[in-house]
Amino acid sequence: MSTGKLYGIGVGPGDPELLTLKGLRILQSVPVVACPQDRRGEAGWASRIVAQYLVSTQKLRALHMPFVPEREQLEPAWAAAADLLYEDLSAGLDVAFITEGDASFYSTFTYLLGEFQTRYPHIAIEVVPGVCSPLAAAAALHMPLVIGSEVLTVMPAMHRLADLEQALLHADTVVLLKVTGVYEPVYRWLEEREWLGQAFLVEWVSGANQQVHRCLPPPGEKLPYFSLLVIRRSAHLTG
Amino acid sequence: MSTGKLYGIGVGPGDPELLTLKGLRILQSVPVVACPQDRRGEAGWASRIVAQYLVSTQKLRALHMPFVPEREQLEPAWAAAADLLYEDLSAGLDVAFITEGDASFYSTFTYLLGEFQTRYPHIAIEVVPGVCSPLAAAAALHMPLVIGSEVLTVMPAMHRLADLEQALLHADTVVLLKVTGVYEPVYRWLEEREWLGQAFLVEWVSGANQQVHRCLPPPGEKLPYFSLLVIRRSAHLTG
Repeated sequence: MSTGKLYGIGVGPGDPELLTLKGLRILQSVPVVACPQDRRGEAGWASRIVAQYLVSTQKLRALHMPFVPEREQLEPAWAAAADLLYEDLSAGLDVAFITEGDASFYSTFTYLLGEFQTRYPHIAIEVVPGVCSPLAAAAALHMPLVIGSEVLTVMPAMHRLADLEQALLHADTVVLLKVTGVYEPVYRWLEEREWLGQAFLVEWVSGANQQVHRCLPPPGEKLPYFSLLVIRRSAHLTG
Repeated sequence: MSTGKLYGIGVGPGDPELLTLKGLRILQSVPVVACPQDRRGEAGWASRIVAQYLVSTQKLRALHMPFVPEREQLEPAWAAAADLLYEDLSAGLDVAFITEGDASFYSTFTYLLGEFQTRYPHIAIEVVPGVCSPLAAAAALHMPLVIGSEVLTVMPAMHRLADLEQALLHADTVVLLKVTGVYEPVYRWLEEREWLGQAFLVEWVSGANQQVHRCLPPPGEKLPYFSLLVIRRSAHLTG
């Protein structure tokens, strides 16, 4: 019996309709769908994005893949997740691991991919890209992310302000992902430079509860985890 | 009679199956589909990506949107393209402008959007994001574009080597789009630093003629226009 194939599918930033045709076709063809658990131990956000496309005969595997910085905790979890999926794959079942956004863009799929490449290199893998959140944010804002000869930098928002300052010396557009934890200092920093008018915030991009802020809200109220800031060095839309 | 709605739809990097479900639904619902002309004056690459989804009753408008640096040539062309689509829109017809990749990521849709926002602000606009080429390239390479706290920089490859050097001081991954014109100096630069093993080339990403180079080909042979280089500062897959 031949082994199954492992797919990594980016399901897009939140709107179920932003799944690709290829993602849908594969998602509906596999007997096993896997995704990271949420904090309550249930199948996480990626599975809620595509819930309407799943059928009851599919097995849904919620994998324990903790969001902590310590590699000593992470690596055994990734290894165990890979082992669990390997059971299905070695029984001949195809498995689709789904991930919000894109599968190569700050995605937990990277960790699984690494485990399989190292430990189970005979398993065939196919990666299906998806729409990542900065693209959907620009669409919601009706503005370009980048155009012409402009340079784009994307930073996960766990960096120092000095890194943001440095990035804005060289990039025309800087996107800060998951900005919640650093929103207040970033807001103050933009305010001091009179750049608030060139910064745009999108919460829950493309989801049913999306909020688009063309004027940044002052710090104070709690932003959701999926909040993204776009800073354009030039306020002109077309460069 | 009410005016039509203008959609900007990113149709993905080349594989027709990388169109989103939303893109397909809208594309098949509109009477008019527009896209930039190619060099022969025919409907360009975006229309070839989605050709199988179009129906014969749809009007296909190939717009003259030249790829030249001179704004004196560009701006009248964009204005004329907007005027042409405005005729359909003011006749009550919905129009989908299609663009390869994503509609906000180095896309000609940005120019049309600017024309409409300035000159026809009463026209309703909706932008549908799509998969951009760096995401599809990482998928084809079976590697992360970025992971964890890494920083990504994307540059259209019309920059000086000094800009690339600068970018690699701060970004973990640098993507050079349309690298053909600067491939030889970039190759030599990577070779001098012994970084050739950390650079990856994808031609015609996700298309039927996609070529993935995990080892960079030496300069000399002509690369296609849609060739993209990914440079990872760390050769490790998972950072």
